[in-house]
Amino acid sequence: MRREQGAKRPPAGAARGGVTRYRLIETAARLCAEGRGAEPSVSEIAAAAGAFPNQVTYHFGSKDSLLLHAAFFNLLHETRRVERIGRRAPDAETFRRNIARAVLALPSLPFVARALATGVAKPELAPVVEQHVHLLFRQSERFVRQLVDARGWTVERPLDVEARTFWSAALGAALLSRAGVDGTAADLDLAGVLTVREGARGPE
Amino acid sequence: MRREQGAKRPPAGAARGGVTRYRLIETAARLCAEGRGAEPSVSEIAAAAGAFPNQVTYHFGSKDSLLLHAAFFNLLHETRRVERIGRRAPDAETFRRNIARAVLALPSLPFVARALATGVAKPELAPVVEQHVHLLFRQSERFVRQLVDARGWTVERPLDVEARTFWSAALGAALLSRAGVDGTAADLDLAGVLTVREGARGPE
Repeated sequence: MRREQGAKRPPAGAARGGVTRYRLIETAARLCAEGRGAEPSVSEIAAAAGAFPNQVTYHFGSKDSLLLHAAFFNLLHETRRVERIGRRAPDAETFRRNIARAVLALPSLPFVARALATGVAKPELAPVVEQHVHLLFRQSERFVRQLVDARGWTVERPLDVEARTFWSAALGAALLSRAGVDGTAADLDLAGVLTVREGARGPE
Repeated sequence: MRREQGAKRPPAGAARGGVTRYRLIETAARLCAEGRGAEPSVSEIAAAAGAFPNQVTYHFGSKDSLLLHAAFFNLLHETRRVERIGRRAPDAETFRRNIARAVLALPSLPFVARALATGVAKPELAPVVEQHVHLLFRQSERFVRQLVDARGWTVERPLDVEARTFWSAALGAALLSRAGVDGTAADLDLAGVLTVREGARGPE
């Protein structure tokens, strides 16, 4: 659609700023995903994004804020794959098991745990955390609602509680693991935290 | 009992060192508990413990390590109260509900989430985290085993998996909350993460 003459639009500088901002997030996310645990530096991110290091400060305030955006950018992207895995499950039990396994194996989960840990130490990041976590919860709720409706499955809790309980357990497990606690996915029953069941059973 | 002459014992300096170490943990724990969110400084802790600030470094390497010890000192102490609440529950459903509510209300939980968050940023703290978290898990397992045996209740998972799944969800919830995510205990079904049930029902 052609933009009407005189229609309100952001000045060209702001539009370019938005592009740079997005490119910095995307580049930081890619470098985090490729780095396998090591955090990219501001100058690495800026160079790879074709930007100046001070543009990180300009758009995000700090490297920590950019890495928080990048971690959730990857998580929200990767959960699309989890959703495809979920849709292929023939029954509710397989759904619970496969979703739990896929989430614990997400490459971005440790980065998100780390980003949340940084958020704990830096209260100024709280609005960024809040915004991304709520996006994650809403996306999960929408996905489960659609699937449960289509299959005639039930969930034993309100969907927002199901999403928050599930992600609390997944992120808590990632936090413990990153903080140094030994163990594997088998030591945790994340599938059992989900209450998606075959039909005909309402909330307890 | 009188110590036998010639029995092996630590030199007097080491014994005094142990006392100072314990007093620093206990004092840091008390100041954290009293501070309601604000972290005590090294000089505050040392002064209140009748020690020198450099004894913190000597015994713990860093303030973060001391605060990690202090957070778990409080948590392990407070969980004794949770155990008393659990023992008073007339049935398994009340047990699950009351335990979950009591744990989410523990004053030390946000400090532990914060200490774990610090542990994520400082890999040198991993052994301290590992040691305390395993102590917490073992204590929880022992408590649930005794109660379940006494009441004839059942647990649908191995007890180590039950403990790790429960604490992952509780600590994940505390992490999200400390990192800035709005919400109350009602938005989370921590009770539903427990699988302690009235008897006669084995693993699903």
